[in-house]
Amino acid sequence: MTFRMPITPRYMEIDSQGVVFNGWYLTWVDEAMAAFLADRGLPYPELIELGFDVHVVRSELDYKSGVRWGDDAAVAVSTGRIGTTSFALDFQVLRGGEVCVAARNVYVVVASDFSGKRPVPPRLLEALGEPAPLLPA
Amino acid sequence: MTFRMPITPRYMEIDSQGVVFNGWYLTWVDEAMAAFLADRGLPYPELIELGFDVHVVRSELDYKSGVRWGDDAAVAVSTGRIGTTSFALDFQVLRGGEVCVAARNVYVVVASDFSGKRPVPPRLLEALGEPAPLLPA
Amino acid sequence: MTFRMPITPRYMEIDSQGVVFNGWYLTWVDEAMAAFLADRGLPYPELIELGFDVHVVRSELDYKSGVRWGDDAAVAVSTGRIGTTSFALDFQVLRGGEVCVAARNVYVVVASDFSGKRPVPPRLLEALGEPAPLLPA
Amino acid sequence: MTFRMPITPRYMEIDSQGVVFNGWYLTWVDEAMAAFLADRGLPYPELIELGFDVHVVRSELDYKSGVRWGDDAAVAVSTGRIGTTSFALDFQVLRGGEVCVAARNVYVVVASDFSGKRPVPPRLLEALGEPAPLLPA
Repeated sequence: MTFRMPITPRYMEIDSQGVVFNGWYLTWVDEAMAAFLADRGLPYPELIELGFDVHVVRSELDYKSGVRWGDDAAVAVSTGRIGTTSFALDFQVLRGGEVCVAARNVYVVVASDFSGKRPVPPRLLEALGEPAPLLPA
Repeated sequence: MTFRMPITPRYMEIDSQGVVFNGWYLTWVDEAMAAFLADRGLPYPELIELGFDVHVVRSELDYKSGVRWGDDAAVAVSTGRIGTTSFALDFQVLRGGEVCVAARNVYVVVASDFSGKRPVPPRLLEALGEPAPLLPA
Repeated sequence: MTFRMPITPRYMEIDSQGVVFNGWYLTWVDEAMAAFLADRGLPYPELIELGFDVHVVRSELDYKSGVRWGDDAAVAVSTGRIGTTSFALDFQVLRGGEVCVAARNVYVVVASDFSGKRPVPPRLLEALGEPAPLLPA
Repeated sequence: MTFRMPITPRYMEIDSQGVVFNGWYLTWVDEAMAAFLADRGLPYPELIELGFDVHVVRSELDYKSGVRWGDDAAVAVSTGRIGTTSFALDFQVLRGGEVCVAARNVYVVVASDFSGKRPVPPRLLEALGEPAPLLPA
């Protein structure tokens, strides 16, 4: 079952076109990423304590339909891909069953002491689980 | 000569990793898009008056190096591609000569009365000029 | 019983001092205002449909303790004062029982057709209820 | 002569009422504060290096007229008050000669090692200069 984080669009996120300004979806996705890892047993602060951090190196977003103020929205999250030192998370911004935005973030794992890239550690691998992409590769 | 919009990173845009939070780059890119069109003789309000509007349908961002507070930054903009009812703009967030973020936004042209897609109008074609992509296709 | 809206501090709202940047509290307060009115039976879109809108004319915020990432926060809302064409809402940003930020917004009621100030309408008076200030006058 | 920082309202800062959302003015004011100190010979990073930091403890904002997209805006800054461990800066968000927002921030000086309040240090006193309030006390 795909993880979902409910989200309430903020009045100030709505732009002059009457929909959420596109940059806010990366904020939503960022919150959903942390909520996803916490749901899988690895809260972000714990990852840091383990000596790791993650940096976003690439984002892709396809905007299909604008989310409006008052919409009942959610962000679905799923592991898209796991590499040696990187992984991808897939996101869907949903309004009911409709996919309003499809997004993918690619993350690299780094040492929290800034000493460079690290292989995805076991605890993170476990949290990510088997890839179940929401987006076509 | 590629158009450049200087930008001062805001203190509040810096996240706990000490760099501009990734979502802000879409805001910077949005401002750079309007500045680019104005520089080419088509201020956004004029586009609206002509009966057209544009919607972002896709964003791609490659984050290479985080912009920090105090950095002297700029966003370079160039036309990436022109289609029948859509076009792409390429962006580079620069710190001096270094490309910190490479991004592409795909826009569709719509009627400003919400009646649907429209071919890229002559005034906009003229402003976009010959494509000179900053990113590989 | 004072109305409370739970809120999750966003990672991107945290500034380089490790706490929520002060400007975000006005966003939180804005969301809490709409949630408060909805809870009192007057969702904001309904107010607009009745021919009214409200504009914030003054904000006061006292920052006592910074909210941090991971904090379990909430915004308490109460009617602070009701005038002829204006009213004040009092807010407390809470972490557990601690008041991190105390704030007051003053709103004026205007016609939604932009024709000027209006007396606070009966439906809004009813939603605001008896003033029960959270801040000293 | 009062210091002024020009600012371009961002498209995404405009809310559904067609004006800059009130929370953004605190961001503008924050940028203007840093620009003001830098203009007076004390760039913020230098203040930190000297072992000091400042925390905002109170904000007051009076919104008189909403700033719109395309407006040629600026933030005027002046020292409002200097106390032992605190000081106030006064701000005016201007559109041409019109004051759209009048604001005051109260700051306390703290040690940058988090060991508590400090008297306003000489370098900061010098940068602040003689108080020349823009707002009535």
